[in-house]
Amino acid sequence: MRILGIDPGLRLTGFGVIEQTGQKLAYVASGVVKSGEGSLPQRLGVLFAGLNEVIATYQPDTCAVEIVFVNVNPQSTLLLGQARGAAICAAVSNQLLVAEYTALQIKQAVVGHGKAAKEQVQEMVKRLLSLPAAPTADAADALACAIAHAHGSHLGAHSTAGYRVKGGRLV
Amino acid sequence: MRILGIDPGLRLTGFGVIEQTGQKLAYVASGVVKSGEGSLPQRLGVLFAGLNEVIATYQPDTCAVEIVFVNVNPQSTLLLGQARGAAICAAVSNQLLVAEYTALQIKQAVVGHGKAAKEQVQEMVKRLLSLPAAPTADAADALACAIAHAHGSHLGAHSTAGYRVKGGRLV
Repeated sequence: MRILGIDPGLRLTGFGVIEQTGQKLAYVASGVVKSGEGSLPQRLGVLFAGLNEVIATYQPDTCAVEIVFVNVNPQSTLLLGQARGAAICAAVSNQLLVAEYTALQIKQAVVGHGKAAKEQVQEMVKRLLSLPAAPTADAADALACAIAHAHGSHLGAHSTAGYRVKGGRLV
Repeated sequence: MRILGIDPGLRLTGFGVIEQTGQKLAYVASGVVKSGEGSLPQRLGVLFAGLNEVIATYQPDTCAVEIVFVNVNPQSTLLLGQARGAAICAAVSNQLLVAEYTALQIKQAVVGHGKAAKEQVQEMVKRLLSLPAAPTADAADALACAIAHAHGSHLGAHSTAGYRVKGGRLV
């Protein structure tokens, strides 16, 4: 099964594609889609088109999207929400099932505990996918999201029913 | 010119299509897309597909989307942002230019002042489009957004550069 992981953001949206064969995980591709400098609709259009291209190129079977932080600034939260909406639309309009994972779930799945630092996530992604070097932070987060889905997909966790908010963040 | 107005919301997204011929405005269609009961990705997919259908059916030349309120609850803001992202992606992926208007701009364009009540907006939309009855609130807001674009489009206002926040709301 080929899994597309997405770490949504308005400026940069990270993506990572892995192939799961039984217990074995293999790296396929990763990178970021940059929304550039235009108006908000133009930038959302760039993210949407970029992820469509990723899906067309790597033909994933399913998709896992990180549940983004609720920023303390409402305006940033709204912008981030719109970027995440664009990412999810790219997946569902390509008939991909979308599973959602919080940063906590992803860190637990990849590092073993929810308080892991960014560098630990990058290092574990490198090890789990036998990469020659650690991926960049954005790509690592997207790959980690795909790995979390690979580890948890036997639970049939294709969507989270609700969110819990703690200290202004989703957990 | 045929204008599609959209009033985005996760539960209900209102749409309204009008035809502008010189100074004359004519009603074409309006309604709501309901996202239903599924998971968040499924609901965003329903909004995206529904608006795609609206665009395929009524073939608008351009699109105007209401700039949504920044809700005081971050979780609601994030959900609303994702719905708005889905709506904008439906428009831009159909090669429509998307203009954005705040509720204040829309009320000023349709009623003449920014403090108008919902009923006044419905009544003015009815009058401006010579409708036999006032449209429902969601459809009226979307039609009002399209009317605001028709009134303002000679300014070439195809996107708002930024937002101003006042009292937790966008103005």
